This record gives sequence, C-alpha cells and structure tokens, in this order.
Amino acid sequence: MSIEVGTIVPAKVGMHVSEIETPALIVDLDAFERNLEKMRDIARTHGVGLRAHAKAHKSADVAHRQLEIGGAHGFCCQKVSEAIALVDAGIKDILISNQIVSPSKIARLIDLSKRANLRVCVDDSENIIALSKAAVEGGIELGCLVEIDVGAGRCGVTPGRDAAELAHQIATAPNLRFDGLQAYHGPAQHCVDANERQSIFESVVVKVERTLTALKDQALECPIISGAGTGTFQKEAASGLFTELQAGTYCFMDASYMSVRNQEGGQEVPFENALFLLCSVMSAVRAGTVVCDGGHKSHAIDSGLPVLVDVEGAEYVGCNDEHGVINDPNNLLKLNDKVRLIPGHCDPTCNLHDTLIGVRNGLVETVWPVTARGKLW
Amino acid sequence: MSIEVGTIVPAKVGMHVSEIETPALIVDLDAFERNLEKMRDIARTHGVGLRAHAKAHKSADVAHRQLEIGGAHGFCCQKVSEAIALVDAGIKDILISNQIVSPSKIARLIDLSKRANLRVCVDDSENIIALSKAAVEGGIELGCLVEIDVGAGRCGVTPGRDAAELAHQIATAPNLRFDGLQAYHGPAQHCVDANERQSIFESVVVKVERTLTALKDQALECPIISGAGTGTFQKEAASGLFTELQAGTYCFMDASYMSVRNQEGGQEVPFENALFLLCSVMSAVRAGTVVCDGGHKSHAIDSGLPVLVDVEGAEYVGCNDEHGVINDPNNLLKLNDKVRLIPGHCDPTCNLHDTLIGVRNGLVETVWPVTARGKLW
Repeated sequence: MSIEVGTIVPAKVGMHVSEIETPALIVDLDAFERNLEKMRDIARTHGVGLRAHAKAHKSADVAHRQLEIGGAHGFCCQKVSEAIALVDAGIKDILISNQIVSPSKIARLIDLSKRANLRVCVDDSENIIALSKAAVEGGIELGCLVEIDVGAGRCGVTPGRDAAELAHQIATAPNLRFDGLQAYHGPAQHCVDANERQSIFESVVVKVERTLTALKDQALECPIISGAGTGTFQKEAASGLFTELQAGTYCFMDASYMSVRNQEGGQEVPFENALFLLCSVMSAVRAGTVVCDGGHKSHAIDSGLPVLVDVEGAEYVGCNDEHGVINDPNNLLKLNDKVRLIPGHCDPTCNLHDTLIGVRNGLVETVWPVTARGKLW
Repeated sequence: MSIEVGTIVPAKVGMHVSEIETPALIVDLDAFERNLEKMRDIARTHGVGLRAHAKAHKSADVAHRQLEIGGAHGFCCQKVSEAIALVDAGIKDILISNQIVSPSKIARLIDLSKRANLRVCVDDSENIIALSKAAVEGGIELGCLVEIDVGAGRCGVTPGRDAAELAHQIATAPNLRFDGLQAYHGPAQHCVDANERQSIFESVVVKVERTLTALKDQALECPIISGAGTGTFQKEAASGLFTELQAGTYCFMDASYMSVRNQEGGQEVPFENALFLLCSVMSAVRAGTVVCDGGHKSHAIDSGLPVLVDVEGAEYVGCNDEHGVINDPNNLLKLNDKVRLIPGHCDPTCNLHDTLIGVRNGLVETVWPVTARGKLW
C-alpha cells in the first residue's frame, strides 16, 4: 500500500477499496450504471423526459453520465450557485426548481442564462416583476414554470385560478416566457405505504388538472409539466400528464428509499443501492460493540441512521459528530476493519463530501469531485 | 448594493449584513470576543489550561483569536486531516482527542508531528504497538494520553487498572511518551438537568481518581488530565484534578447549549449566542407561514431545529434539504426579508459552510474560511 503523507488523497485510481481513506463515499459503478439504464428505459417506455435532479449528487461527472447513458435531457438544481458550478462543468440545460428572489441571486440567474438554457420556478407576483425587469436589463428571455402547491404545503401557489393568473402575468411580462408547471410532492416520495403514496399521487393529478383547466380559460399553452421523485416517478411517467421526471436519488439510492422499495417489492422503486459510506473500526474496547470513524459529519441523519451491510448481525445504532457506534453481537469486527454503510439520505450526505469514489471489482476506477458541494446560494 | 455575478462571494468586508448572500453563517464578533474573555478568565481563576476544541469551528482564524485573546495554550482536533489544515495555518499545539489506528492515518500523524507539538489518544494495546513502530521509523517522540471511558460508553478503556496497564505499555514503548489521561464525557455536556449533570460529573471524578491510584501503583506520573466541554467545564476547572479544558462550542454557542444555559440561569454556561445562520424569506404564499432558504444542508439538525430570533411570535418549525418553514402568526415576514437562526448544533453546522462571516455594528468586518471543513480523515 502506498501512503501519501503530504496532501490527503482519499483514493487513487487503481487502489484497492480497502486502501481508501475513511470515512469516504464510494459508488458501486455497476449498480449505478444499472440504475441509470433502468430509469432511462422506463422514461423512454412512457415517452416522458428525464430532467434528473442534481441536488441529489451535486456532481458534474454523475450528471454527464446521466446524459450519456442515462437518457437525461436536462437537470434540476435548487440553487443558482449549484447551477453555476454545473454549467461551469459543461451542463447546459437546467431548471432551478426553486424560487429565486433576492436581487443578487436574480442577477446571477440572468447572467448564467446567457450561457445555459435556464428556467426558474415562481410562486409570487412581485418576484415575476423583479425577474422580468432583470431579464430586460440583461437582454435575455427567461423561461418560468409556475410552481403549484400540490399538497406538500411548502412553496408553490394554490393550484387552479391563482396559478393561471401567475402564468398569465409571466406570459405578458417583458422578456419572460411561460413554460409550464412545477408540480412536485416531496413527502409522497418517501411515503412507505403504497396505498397512501397512490392516494397522494391521485390528489396531485387533480391539482394539476385543475390548473390546466384554468390555463385553458386564459388561452395559455402549458408545454412542460415537471415533477416526480424516486418514490413516485412511475406514476408520473404513466400519467399521460407529466412531460418530464425530476427524480434524483434513483442513481444512488439511500436507506430512506430502500424502506419504500422493500415495502413494495421493488416494482415502483426498482433501483439498487449504489452509494456507500466506507468506514473503519477505530475503537474496539468492549465485547459486542465497536466504534467506527463515520459520524454524522460524514452522513446526514435527517432521515434516520445509516444501514450497515456485509457484517452478519451487526447494526449501526448511534452516532456523534465523528463517531459511529456499531452493535456487533457476534464480535466479528476488529480494530481497523472496514464497514460499508448505506446513508440514511443521499442528498445531504453527498453535500458533506468533496469526492465520490467510483469502484468496480474491488478497485477504484474513478474519483469524482462533488462539484457543487456547499453551494448554498 | 454591489452585486458580484461572476464568482460567488458570500460577503465582502464593509458590506451591510442585509447584503450577505444567504444562507450564510455570521459571527457576532462582540459576543464572540466576550465569550473568549469569559472562558479565559474562568480558566485563569482556577489555574487550568485551555485546550480549546477546534472541531467546533474548524477555523484557523477562530483558533488564532482563542490564542491571542482567549487564553488558549493549545487545541484539540478529532481527525488528523483537521489537524493538518490547522497546522498549515499556523496552529502548533494539538491533541488529537481521538484514536488514530489506520496505517495511512498513523503515517500522516507521525509526519505532522515533525512540524507541530502533537499528542494523540489511545485505548488499545495493538494501536500502541503500531504508533510506537511508526514513531521509531519516523524518528520522532509522540505524546499519548490514555482515553478512559468515563461513562459515555463510546471510546476509551475501562478506568483503573486497565488504563494504567495501557499507560505502562506506552511509557515503555520506544518513542512514545505517556502524557496523561483523556477523560471527556460528551452526553454530560448537553444534559439540561443541573442535578443530573452534577451527578454525572461526580462519577467522572471517581473514575479519574481510580485511574490515578492505579497509575501511582505503576509509579507513573500523570502530567495531563484533559477533558470538559461547554456544559460542565466549570466543574472540571474547579476540581483540582483536571489540568486542561477541552471546551469548543463556548466561543459561538448553539441552541442545544442555550437550553442548558436557560435551565440554570447562565451561571454554569455564561456564554452568549454569537453564531447565527442568516436566511432570506423565499416564498410567502400562505398567511401565517413563510419559507426561508436555509434548510438542513445549511444547518445540522442532529440536536434539533434552529431557533429563530428577532421576529415576534415567529418560529422555525420544520425543514428539508434547502427549505426552512417558519410559522409567522403575526404575518410580519415578507418576501426577501432576512431572519437569523441560532443553529441547533454548532459543530456540524460550521462543517457545512466554507466561510464564517464576522459582523460588528451591522457591517461585515471579516470573512474567515472554515479551514478544516470536510476534513473527515
């Protein structure tokens, strides 16, 4: 094993997995590629577009693979700074699936739209005025989707007439273009009960249809209806209503979506776990318990603890910032042993790391930077 | 307001607070400096050292102020890579308050100890053999503290004879030096009940004393007894037993320690909130609720949600990755308004940001990089 003592390199191409610095995020490239192909094929079968959500991985390399082998035609970002990082890395079609309201963010949005095909979501009349003014000043045309609140109660205008009024305002605002609707239901994605997930989805459809009727009353075309996540995307794909899917986590999966998948037998969420946090055992004083070097500074716990794989009977039962406690009733783990964890939630976990380490057949094949890590603005 | 559209600069010196890009971490420099002075004075009064924990802020600039005005004589780090980042930025005395067991990490530890006064914690006999071998090969002497499990049940050897045996092994191992004990109780710090906190502390003292007796039996000196955090440090300081305090969060505070402080009237935790997440309202569709741009990718929620200040009756009630939901029963908040949140937990929150923005009298005075952000190894 060659050890770098100067700068810290978490992994080098050709290295064995056991030599990777821990804690580190590793991507099982075979599983990752199969996930991309599955999503591509399902989207194609239903004739819907795939606008993969880059907030899940924040990686330009992952995005380029989603374009090259995954059938994606574009991406979503949540922040302008996230989009800037991806455009700088060659990604050219991005919907900011979020409201951009502060003057400095609007200025950057307009600037960025000069070198990428950019769209943004809106739910506010004042914001439309500000966007239009900035688009005029910047000499560009900006495509806008009206975000409707399909039941998640977060952002988004009331579906129906309120939404159509905003659409009309956009359509008549200088240098703005009404491109369609943003209709995403976050909590539905993670709903483990299949019946409840179906019933939420049906209520989403009602709200989208009500808005389409109101748009028709205003004689407005609605070319794009964008939405869906890894939990419900097959419903949107088959709906005949949605034109593009915004799923993100499908490429990597996580413990939260694994619960959804396990509950329904993998028909609706047919993806494999491709993202793991590789950790090392760093303390093994007491029988039945070891401590590993992966605490919640290396994996997000908003959706629960990570799931330990590979070690019979062992379970990751708690953590602090830099430590993870593993129950190991069979005393299989020794000091310095490596363990793999499936992170509870993919998106904020990727945001904690500078690199994603792609592995195949036990060897490091590639090291991808997390291009938009920490891009909060 | 001057707007940068090319590269993204969260803040510039001289900028008004309202112009800072959000979400961003801001430091109230007056409160921060008062916190440093308070800790310095308490440590001095009791004649104990202050080895401030850098895992809380990961910032070399904060560390330098802890040295210059805060009375610190050294620092703790949790990871070798964290220590490397701080040594590169001029910090010269660091205890790795953690076990370093993998060959590559040990190699870097030895390398780093050639250019800094470095110590490390151990709780395992095998690890002592590996450290000694590497220290001999590197031609350096390495100071070791035996970590004892004072009740937190994480890392650390059993207090008493087991600990003294490890100390003896260190003292007789080539190129290692037994420097003392690591006796830190994490959960005690955040225990809101003052009586329970006191009772845990008393049990810690018993375990340290038992170990000192066992060390005396081995005729081993114990120059350093290191421990304490922001919740209990006055007890360790006054104990006549501990020689140095490892508190970290005291410089910034957070919502978790604010609960401890509020419960006991600020006698034991006499610090002010100096760290805030500045956010902007980005959606305000429904009466009584707004959505801000600070979700849990910008503040850690392992210790609960952040606490919103400044706005009468308003409360931060939930979040997703990039969104925070604020109940605003008095409808005081409008689109693009700024709000300040006290993060639930300081340490992992700082780790989510590239910069800490120091403000005084409403203006940006300094922008500090989070030097060791993401240094997980």
